[in-house]
Amino acid sequence: MSGQIQWVNHGQWAEVVLSNPNKFNAMSRSMWRQLREVFEAVQTQSALRLVVVRGEGDHFCSGGDISEYPCFRFDEASLSDFHENEVWGGLSAILNVDVPVVADIRGNCMGAGVEIASCCDVRWAHVQARFGAPIAKLGFPMAPREAALIFATLGDLTAREMLLFASILDAPTMVQRGFLNGCWDTVALDDRLEQTVEKVLSLSSQAARLNKQTLRGLRVGVPADAQPASYAYANHPQHREGIAAFLDKRLPQF
Amino acid sequence: MSGQIQWVNHGQWAEVVLSNPNKFNAMSRSMWRQLREVFEAVQTQSALRLVVVRGEGDHFCSGGDISEYPCFRFDEASLSDFHENEVWGGLSAILNVDVPVVADIRGNCMGAGVEIASCCDVRWAHVQARFGAPIAKLGFPMAPREAALIFATLGDLTAREMLLFASILDAPTMVQRGFLNGCWDTVALDDRLEQTVEKVLSLSSQAARLNKQTLRGLRVGVPADAQPASYAYANHPQHREGIAAFLDKRLPQF
Amino acid sequence: MSGQIQWVNHGQWAEVVLSNPNKFNAMSRSMWRQLREVFEAVQTQSALRLVVVRGEGDHFCSGGDISEYPCFRFDEASLSDFHENEVWGGLSAILNVDVPVVADIRGNCMGAGVEIASCCDVRWAHVQARFGAPIAKLGFPMAPREAALIFATLGDLTAREMLLFASILDAPTMVQRGFLNGCWDTVALDDRLEQTVEKVLSLSSQAARLNKQTLRGLRVGVPADAQPASYAYANHPQHREGIAAFLDKRLPQF
Repeated sequence: MSGQIQWVNHGQWAEVVLSNPNKFNAMSRSMWRQLREVFEAVQTQSALRLVVVRGEGDHFCSGGDISEYPCFRFDEASLSDFHENEVWGGLSAILNVDVPVVADIRGNCMGAGVEIASCCDVRWAHVQARFGAPIAKLGFPMAPREAALIFATLGDLTAREMLLFASILDAPTMVQRGFLNGCWDTVALDDRLEQTVEKVLSLSSQAARLNKQTLRGLRVGVPADAQPASYAYANHPQHREGIAAFLDKRLPQF
Repeated sequence: MSGQIQWVNHGQWAEVVLSNPNKFNAMSRSMWRQLREVFEAVQTQSALRLVVVRGEGDHFCSGGDISEYPCFRFDEASLSDFHENEVWGGLSAILNVDVPVVADIRGNCMGAGVEIASCCDVRWAHVQARFGAPIAKLGFPMAPREAALIFATLGDLTAREMLLFASILDAPTMVQRGFLNGCWDTVALDDRLEQTVEKVLSLSSQAARLNKQTLRGLRVGVPADAQPASYAYANHPQHREGIAAFLDKRLPQF
Repeated sequence: MSGQIQWVNHGQWAEVVLSNPNKFNAMSRSMWRQLREVFEAVQTQSALRLVVVRGEGDHFCSGGDISEYPCFRFDEASLSDFHENEVWGGLSAILNVDVPVVADIRGNCMGAGVEIASCCDVRWAHVQARFGAPIAKLGFPMAPREAALIFATLGDLTAREMLLFASILDAPTMVQRGFLNGCWDTVALDDRLEQTVEKVLSLSSQAARLNKQTLRGLRVGVPADAQPASYAYANHPQHREGIAAFLDKRLPQF
């Protein structure tokens, strides 16, 4: 078993670190299972208001850990179990989290890296980050739910270019294609992340939770949880505080 | 009751003006109800071929009129009635109009402003216009159908950035994100609008009506009317005139 | 009968050429029927790994062959038959092909040209190519499935701008709008196509086939074939070869 998912708790926010440093943070089977455990734990911690996902060292994630593939990929049942349970278990755990999730993408973001980034709510990248899903070089297609996920975030054009033509695209192109919210050099990216943490901690956590539940249902082909009672928040203290603070011309305290 | 929806009829086209000038044209409850009435009237006027929606003065729309919120938002039934009937009544009246609708966006376009602009067919903006839906600062989420609407026009990336991170984005960024068709300075924007009116009045009105009926059904999660009989236009005079004019190498008269 | 669909077979890849040179390659009824025949034949030829679609001469396709329209468009039954069987027969034959399809777009790409390009997996264009669907000038709307197709590739914003405002957009704008993967001058476009052929012939053909089957189902409102058994490829030789080659640090032989 190689690699691990690290967890750095800062109280109101946390970092989830993809760590398999000898392999540019390639996702091993045990890392997928840990990813699920970590995000299932995130969802139970009501004090948390933000999660940042990043890679250990200079890269986000280079894909799957191919050294493990000969052990299970050539049998249909174990291949299906890998994608439907291990990989989708990890990805859906991120998708099901109700707090905002930021992807901090530097270096290589390939295959599984694109999938994990697609489960995040904003994607901020270093200007020299590189993106792709060149599994056509490995002789196999993307699993259906993973394909639906990246189709929803990459768009039709880029999903086809990556999957069918094994294209590797740079960060400015991925901004232009609508996958990244922006790309910067190291100093500006660090600043942006710091400001984001401060900003999100000042916003209403219940608004974020309810918005994420609503938005979750809108991606085509990506399974969603049941919708909440849409207006049950009417009497919620954060709803009252937000409007009172605006009318009082003061900052709200969420 | 503050604010009103103004209506300027130019015969074959009309302007709808969001007017609440002391509040940057924030939408009051009575304005939502008037918006519905105005667009329901638009739909009955067969002479109309184009509607332009703009704000009074220097801004498009700054959001909802928050001064009214304490009166009804903290009760689930009245909150639901506001969003499902008043707000969606206004928005769906725009969506249900069969003539092309242009958004002329200057200054602030926030929350309700983004929603109203999302119901228009093209969105042209001043280069200094600013966009956002920072309701997380007010402690509440976007209503489900409104979220589906802006998700369809902003895209997944920008919808999440605005709703979960309260980001304010400028006009060039909104062009790059695919929400705006373009942005210009005042002179160029005025020219563009003038040319558009002239252009649309020369096009087939029945083609526009049928295209809007078809396109209406394609936005995911946004309720659509029933589809028309798709080919019942075969013998329509504008269909005959358009093809005859092309073959005669003359301008069509619609 | 004017125009024809030409077929140039290079063994592992082929060119499909839209050819009606006196009319900038406008699609006649017989060309739509030939387009279907050609792509149905493509799908049966297991040696093929790539198709490039281009226009004869300086243009991609200027739209439909309007000189034929008076013969059949003004009767609802024959109009429906044209769109639902002839046009959609040709377009769906491209959509149903399991090998990657590249659009090589130069000059005018209007109406039917946009539709044909929308069925391709990547769209590469000359920097001076021009795009539109100005059928509102001809007095008729786009047929429903064709509208759903271009809505999926152009996006809501550009589909409405083209259909309702008869806008003609240039290649850099279409890159920015996410319809084109890129645009170049003649030399760079020729280079790009040559590299693409070489690249795709080195990739796994079964990965491409299975990815296309999965992606086909994800476009909203565009009918898709049934999905394949998603993991039946487990023991496929290309799956084994791809992973073995990676682990052996050699190039795979597909």
